[in-house]
Amino acid sequence: MKEKERNWKEKLHEIIYEADTPAGKNFDIVLLILILSSLIVVMLESVEDFRIQYQEWINIAEWLITILFSIEYILRIVTVNKPLRYVFSFYGLIDFVSTIPKYVSLFFGGANVLIAVRILRLLRVFRILKLARFIGESNLLIKAIRASRAKISVFLLAVISIAVILGTVMYLIEGPEAGFTSIPRSIYWTIVTLTTVGYGDIAPQTSWGQFIASVVMILGYGIIAVPTGIVTSELTRQDKDIRTNTQSCRNCGNERHYNKAEFCHQCGTNLH
Amino acid sequence: MKEKERNWKEKLHEIIYEADTPAGKNFDIVLLILILSSLIVVMLESVEDFRIQYQEWINIAEWLITILFSIEYILRIVTVNKPLRYVFSFYGLIDFVSTIPKYVSLFFGGANVLIAVRILRLLRVFRILKLARFIGESNLLIKAIRASRAKISVFLLAVISIAVILGTVMYLIEGPEAGFTSIPRSIYWTIVTLTTVGYGDIAPQTSWGQFIASVVMILGYGIIAVPTGIVTSELTRQDKDIRTNTQSCRNCGNERHYNKAEFCHQCGTNLH
Amino acid sequence: MKEKERNWKEKLHEIIYEADTPAGKNFDIVLLILILSSLIVVMLESVEDFRIQYQEWINIAEWLITILFSIEYILRIVTVNKPLRYVFSFYGLIDFVSTIPKYVSLFFGGANVLIAVRILRLLRVFRILKLARFIGESNLLIKAIRASRAKISVFLLAVISIAVILGTVMYLIEGPEAGFTSIPRSIYWTIVTLTTVGYGDIAPQTSWGQFIASVVMILGYGIIAVPTGIVTSELTRQDKDIRTNTQSCRNCGNERHYNKAEFCHQCGTNLH
Amino acid sequence: MKEKERNWKEKLHEIIYEADTPAGKNFDIVLLILILSSLIVVMLESVEDFRIQYQEWINIAEWLITILFSIEYILRIVTVNKPLRYVFSFYGLIDFVSTIPKYVSLFFGGANVLIAVRILRLLRVFRILKLARFIGESNLLIKAIRASRAKISVFLLAVISIAVILGTVMYLIEGPEAGFTSIPRSIYWTIVTLTTVGYGDIAPQTSWGQFIASVVMILGYGIIAVPTGIVTSELTRQDKDIRTNTQSCRNCGNERHYNKAEFCHQCGTNLH
Repeated sequence: MKEKERNWKEKLHEIIYEADTPAGKNFDIVLLILILSSLIVVMLESVEDFRIQYQEWINIAEWLITILFSIEYILRIVTVNKPLRYVFSFYGLIDFVSTIPKYVSLFFGGANVLIAVRILRLLRVFRILKLARFIGESNLLIKAIRASRAKISVFLLAVISIAVILGTVMYLIEGPEAGFTSIPRSIYWTIVTLTTVGYGDIAPQTSWGQFIASVVMILGYGIIAVPTGIVTSELTRQDKDIRTNTQSCRNCGNERHYNKAEFCHQCGTNLH
Repeated sequence: MKEKERNWKEKLHEIIYEADTPAGKNFDIVLLILILSSLIVVMLESVEDFRIQYQEWINIAEWLITILFSIEYILRIVTVNKPLRYVFSFYGLIDFVSTIPKYVSLFFGGANVLIAVRILRLLRVFRILKLARFIGESNLLIKAIRASRAKISVFLLAVISIAVILGTVMYLIEGPEAGFTSIPRSIYWTIVTLTTVGYGDIAPQTSWGQFIASVVMILGYGIIAVPTGIVTSELTRQDKDIRTNTQSCRNCGNERHYNKAEFCHQCGTNLH
Repeated sequence: MKEKERNWKEKLHEIIYEADTPAGKNFDIVLLILILSSLIVVMLESVEDFRIQYQEWINIAEWLITILFSIEYILRIVTVNKPLRYVFSFYGLIDFVSTIPKYVSLFFGGANVLIAVRILRLLRVFRILKLARFIGESNLLIKAIRASRAKISVFLLAVISIAVILGTVMYLIEGPEAGFTSIPRSIYWTIVTLTTVGYGDIAPQTSWGQFIASVVMILGYGIIAVPTGIVTSELTRQDKDIRTNTQSCRNCGNERHYNKAEFCHQCGTNLH
Repeated sequence: MKEKERNWKEKLHEIIYEADTPAGKNFDIVLLILILSSLIVVMLESVEDFRIQYQEWINIAEWLITILFSIEYILRIVTVNKPLRYVFSFYGLIDFVSTIPKYVSLFFGGANVLIAVRILRLLRVFRILKLARFIGESNLLIKAIRASRAKISVFLLAVISIAVILGTVMYLIEGPEAGFTSIPRSIYWTIVTLTTVGYGDIAPQTSWGQFIASVVMILGYGIIAVPTGIVTSELTRQDKDIRTNTQSCRNCGNERHYNKAEFCHQCGTNLH
């Protein structure tokens, strides 16, 4: 009996936690659809017209999702070896928090805060995708960004300093009539301009203000080259590092052989 | 007689389908002008003042284009070897769909849907340009984009996730007064900001909203570096690939030797 | 006497056309200041308040500039060897056109067209700067852009096609209420969005419109990577081409030696 | 006694001017917090609602900061070897100017100019960060930007010329109704569009204006590739420079050998 139960638990564990078997893959796909559906329900509920018209349907959908999430959560606890470790792990907490909002709303009403909690279900998507193949690519990107962390911090510091100083200058030049009512608001405008977003809710009116704004724009247009240069040179280097090794030929000392190369491409000596 | 007909068909086929002969080139140029004219007519027709004033001229122009397209379509069917295969090919369907709108409008009136159909004539331009020399360059670009497909998907997924989470946060902070009336609308705003488009139809009013907006902008300003880095490093690599040749080794069949390599880097055989 | 005149002409030619002597340099600097002043006068004249208040001063300044330009133009004709060739050269025409507007205005009044003609004086600046040292850098940039001309045309064609198709789709979805009154206007909006400019004078109102707008934005945000990648990979290649040569070592066949290298950096063999 | 005083002075000097000891580090951190607090006070004071409500608290905070800055300034003078050189150094002047605004306001009232002076305290942050490790990264960036100075000037000149010429064209086409009231304002609009900022406070209304605006946008969208390409290729090169070492040859003193080079590429001498 115990043997059988173990088998049963192991099989479920395989289906829920792994994606190697067809059943495991199907489980992941169903879960992905369920999560995305729950996100769409949250979004639609926030549209006023929709909420008023389909109140009941939204309620039913949300209960359905909550019940299915509850079952999944219980199964995850039951089938895992160390339930407590799962419960307090990052994804364990996300799973819990994705499940409870509807239960909580029974006691406290549909508070706004619950929306933020429910949108966190999005994070569950990443666990499923983690199993997918293309995570390797994302690792490469993350590595490139991490390697250029120091350069990016320096860049951010420079951008913020420019925003603070030029924001103050614009506050003094333009004044409240043009929307520059305070230094923080002027800094906000400078960031809007420097990043080339340009809402237009605050815009300089005086000649001097427009002149400095032009400087800010050209500055912003130019310094976008810096993060781009950083990431690109990092990606180019990683790309090169992956494809060639630094092994030098015993005979002629030539380097940068392809990883798969067995002979020096210069003099034909066996590399091993 | 049959011989003669064949000659006649073959010559027409050469003119219509190929661009090697002067006649073929001229046919392509005339067709290009016709297609572009038909597009201009569609566009001008959509301008209300113009449509009312020149109703008749537009009608005549459209009929002229339709008749010429009809003749071309019939000739294409007649001169091709396997007419059915042409009719159901991608460009065959485009040709058909480019020709019929005016005939259809005789029975159903000038419906709006027909505009979309007529604008599809643009796709015919690509067949003509396919014959042009610079398609090689476009292949290089497409190859670079295809090679970085996985990295770009990861990037898009990250952008959409950021837009969903920060959009929800902005919805909760700003509320309907500032235009953040629903989560989908807030996500729309986040994308507008993250991509540095910045319409300004929706803009944060509260201090906290403006602070988070600033974060979104700097984020968007920074992460534009990522697709740029991806495509650039890919193009740089392809550029280098051109410098390696596709000569395969006599011994082991290995490829991708440096242009100046004298020995196969796989088995050490002399390449010459 | 003739000898003397020749000397006098030669000296003036040296001052006016060359920048090697101190006098020639000073002449260029004075001319540069004069040209920039004349541009500032044109600009200030276009500001209504300023024009009304300082009408007379502007008039005097413009006459002064015109007379000095006239003297310079006559001297250029007198001192050059082939006056006719100069008069009909690119810069000769620019010089002529820079000088006459004030004379013309005596007969026809200050027409608007003359502003455009007077702003063309800006082009005179480039002749002076051509003599400056840093033109080499600009040549490098122009070379990089020229080398990637074909790729850039393909890119532009793709951008315009996307703008036409998506512009038509937006015209059909949004309609005139949101500002999408005609297809050309919709295409204008698509370009505004695709290039991440985002004025906000036309902005989608419906959900579907905002969804497609989001797609356009992310598309525009992404494809900016393409021209950047093209120019960058071109500049990187040119940079590399300048610093290393393709001479291979007689002994070990190694390549990519620095231009100044006299010995192979791999095996120490003399390269010459 | 003198010995003791010297010790005392030396210790304080170490704490204030250096960051090697724990006390020195703590001093820097406290100073950093103090400077950032003073900046926040300046910013909050510019928010009208806040200024009216918390007038007194702001006053107290500002006095507290001023007194602490005064003590620090006096200590810096006392502990440094050459006080006069410090007082007239860049950071010495910044320190002085950061300290006095509140004293000045006792005599002249809280003038607007003092805000600009007080925001300059931000510059003090950089002295502290100079001691931090990641300044090396910023040096790399500055070096890359400095190396591409000439290319960037050419680029800026081109951008400004385009802005002047197209701005004038737009002024002539659109006229004052659409907001193009003068040439400087039109140039301002062209820069707003070319840099893809796009406020929308001025936007073309006529068909021709929108057509030229589209050209400006695509131009701006494309030429952003140029500074990006410049900085990226520079960073990539510097990256490579790191892989060549600065070891000088024993024989001819030549440098910039590849890290793995065994022979001098100038004279052929073995490097080891």
